[in-house]
Amino acid sequence: MSENPIRSLSGTEDRLPWQWEFWRRLHAAARRQFALHGYGELATPVLEDARLFIKGTGEDTEIVEKQMYTLNSSADGEDGNGGNEAITLRPEGTPPAIRAYLEANMHKRGKFRKLWYAGPMFRRERPQKGRLRQFHQIGVEAIGGESPLLDAETILLAAAIYRDAGLTQCQTHINSIGCPRCRPSYRHALKESLENRVRELCHDCHRRLDRNVLRVLDCKNPGCRQVAGDAPVIKDMLCGECDRHYALVKAAIDGGGVSYREEPHLVRGLDYYTRTVYEIKHSALGARDTICGGGRYDGLVTQLGGPHTPCVGFAMGVEATLIAMEEESCADEAEGGDGIDVYVVCFDDSARPRCFEQVTSLRKAGLSADMDYEGRSSSKQLKMANKSGAAFSLLVGGSELQRNAAALKDMHSGKQQEVPLEKAAGEIRKRKSASGNT
Amino acid sequence: MSENPIRSLSGTEDRLPWQWEFWRRLHAAARRQFALHGYGELATPVLEDARLFIKGTGEDTEIVEKQMYTLNSSADGEDGNGGNEAITLRPEGTPPAIRAYLEANMHKRGKFRKLWYAGPMFRRERPQKGRLRQFHQIGVEAIGGESPLLDAETILLAAAIYRDAGLTQCQTHINSIGCPRCRPSYRHALKESLENRVRELCHDCHRRLDRNVLRVLDCKNPGCRQVAGDAPVIKDMLCGECDRHYALVKAAIDGGGVSYREEPHLVRGLDYYTRTVYEIKHSALGARDTICGGGRYDGLVTQLGGPHTPCVGFAMGVEATLIAMEEESCADEAEGGDGIDVYVVCFDDSARPRCFEQVTSLRKAGLSADMDYEGRSSSKQLKMANKSGAAFSLLVGGSELQRNAAALKDMHSGKQQEVPLEKAAGEIRKRKSASGNT
Repeated sequence: MSENPIRSLSGTEDRLPWQWEFWRRLHAAARRQFALHGYGELATPVLEDARLFIKGTGEDTEIVEKQMYTLNSSADGEDGNGGNEAITLRPEGTPPAIRAYLEANMHKRGKFRKLWYAGPMFRRERPQKGRLRQFHQIGVEAIGGESPLLDAETILLAAAIYRDAGLTQCQTHINSIGCPRCRPSYRHALKESLENRVRELCHDCHRRLDRNVLRVLDCKNPGCRQVAGDAPVIKDMLCGECDRHYALVKAAIDGGGVSYREEPHLVRGLDYYTRTVYEIKHSALGARDTICGGGRYDGLVTQLGGPHTPCVGFAMGVEATLIAMEEESCADEAEGGDGIDVYVVCFDDSARPRCFEQVTSLRKAGLSADMDYEGRSSSKQLKMANKSGAAFSLLVGGSELQRNAAALKDMHSGKQQEVPLEKAAGEIRKRKSASGNT
Repeated sequence: MSENPIRSLSGTEDRLPWQWEFWRRLHAAARRQFALHGYGELATPVLEDARLFIKGTGEDTEIVEKQMYTLNSSADGEDGNGGNEAITLRPEGTPPAIRAYLEANMHKRGKFRKLWYAGPMFRRERPQKGRLRQFHQIGVEAIGGESPLLDAETILLAAAIYRDAGLTQCQTHINSIGCPRCRPSYRHALKESLENRVRELCHDCHRRLDRNVLRVLDCKNPGCRQVAGDAPVIKDMLCGECDRHYALVKAAIDGGGVSYREEPHLVRGLDYYTRTVYEIKHSALGARDTICGGGRYDGLVTQLGGPHTPCVGFAMGVEATLIAMEEESCADEAEGGDGIDVYVVCFDDSARPRCFEQVTSLRKAGLSADMDYEGRSSSKQLKMANKSGAAFSLLVGGSELQRNAAALKDMHSGKQQEVPLEKAAGEIRKRKSASGNT
């Protein structure tokens, strides 16, 4: 060992070969449900023009103000991007999805699109349980539909993914935060009410009072939560259309058999939401218990330079969801367990190339096969065969090898039988299918 | 439309819902072969300490000198990383895999590991065909084995993935670049030979002569290629052990039935390779035709602070491989094609919530189902049903609805039949399995 080895950066994680169980189950559930619900996959780059989030996510949001990883490309004469824009590691998936939708001219062909994505996001935060600087989201954006049924579809879809992933303890919270017609008067009423108790609010909330008063409802500070709890609720001030929309969303979720709670002070930490907002929470997470958040955002597409296009979507936090799955022991039965089909054991060092050829031809026949590459003795190789969880081992060497044969051992029963080398794959396949492990 | 919409950054790409065909086939082939060959999945973060690549990839490489995206975290008091290291977007996957291997103490438990990874990499390059700034790699690292059979396994594995992905026109080129014992004398001989024709070499190669003379063999400049072509070859100067190792690698590839060409001037643009190096090329790519590159790197683990651990691995360029797959028309038969199971058409606007309930229950029954969310007329909905490629449509409205029934239409034959709404899912499943489309 030389000096201290270089370690991973704080707030980032490796996923090791034995840590995929929950991850794979969640992603398989999501893919299955996206297919059933008619969502098509979209991948956007990790790197985006910083203006996309300044305009899209909103200049006053915590994400844009404090959490973006931005690098300046101005030093780079060859960048082909005009020379001096700022490049950002995407902190969230919604503005990039809309950017891609417009850039591919999807608004000109059919307009309505249901998209999903999964991938890493980046925020410069203080790392803590379930909060990483590189984290992962699975999200959907249903673009071009105004119907309240579509809001409900995304909520039922999120619930279906979690159910399919094995979670039973999720709670869905919903609210409506109105539209540009009714929200201003609520904002005014809220501000007036909060100003009466301004001394109980934290320093950040003083600023929020003027810049974005709804955000006070989102503050985690206990004093602010107390004040917010007594504040007026928007539900009572929705315009006729927003009120009707909200009622239809709730009825459709009821019809889909998903229970939820109305949370009259629920807002979301992003500027673009209109009308429906929702969160799915799980008690395994502690204080920051949201594992999925979403809502309607009818103004974002115009904000980003496109035509009027109503949208609704959600993003699931993958790491947060995995904590919930671990808590509920949602192990995937299909994962892990079985081990490889066959381990080839070499009893004579000069026969190693022959063994390797045998391993290769077993793999070509669709069997998972392996052997020793570290020069172990045959007795140690036998131990490795056991450890590998192989269903069979093929013992190569001695007089059998001179007859182009080897001993095929069933690792379960311990029984051995001589087989010609070129028939080993066929024999193993036959026995596998006889025992039902195809 | 307001002002110019924000676009994706040069050298980055979206992948749209109709662009996944080749991507999915390649990744499915890779996963299948990794399972057959006994490789376990590893994911490492996009963000790493810059020193990992300076030490691992090598200070004198083009990647580290010119192509790394690096951001300084010094302004960030909360980073928990000691305050002032440089953060890099990973330009390649090998040093992170070794970092993860050491950080998880895999060298202390069993030592030998076969790992694979897939994900985005970042290099600040001039964007061109098949060369992006955010590109993707699928790679393997076989860590802890010195056997030449392991070099051969990785080459056969790469070939198996490409074959499984449908490619038939790949060429494998191999070479040995020796070890720290025999390479210095080759380096000396090469330098001496090149110095005789120094005036024919490009400016960059003048510098390479002193700093890393092997890199001259890699220069794409026609003049330099000419000179390099006449230079001595390392094959004639390998030490006994390297020579024997190389011979065994070749014999094992032969035994695996993969044809290859010896390329005596093949080096790789990275500092860490020892002994075996290889590239897989495809003519669809033009001048820069490498779609996979790899080799043995016995010194990297100690370089990064770990114990002596011989390794071998490769990285496939996903975008480059996709170009080859398109050229060879390796379409995935399983992909695309079929369309959804059932499209629900609403003949009466007031029945839309009922239709939505029906769509939800069809999905719960495992059928892919959809409906209109844009308020289309029933005749336009019928057109959408056609366009969606649905196998069935369910026509909801009128007198049937009063009987809690709807008309189920087979979109292929055009035949309609009334079914009770709660039996629609069962009926569709029955007909699907009768026609073999389960």
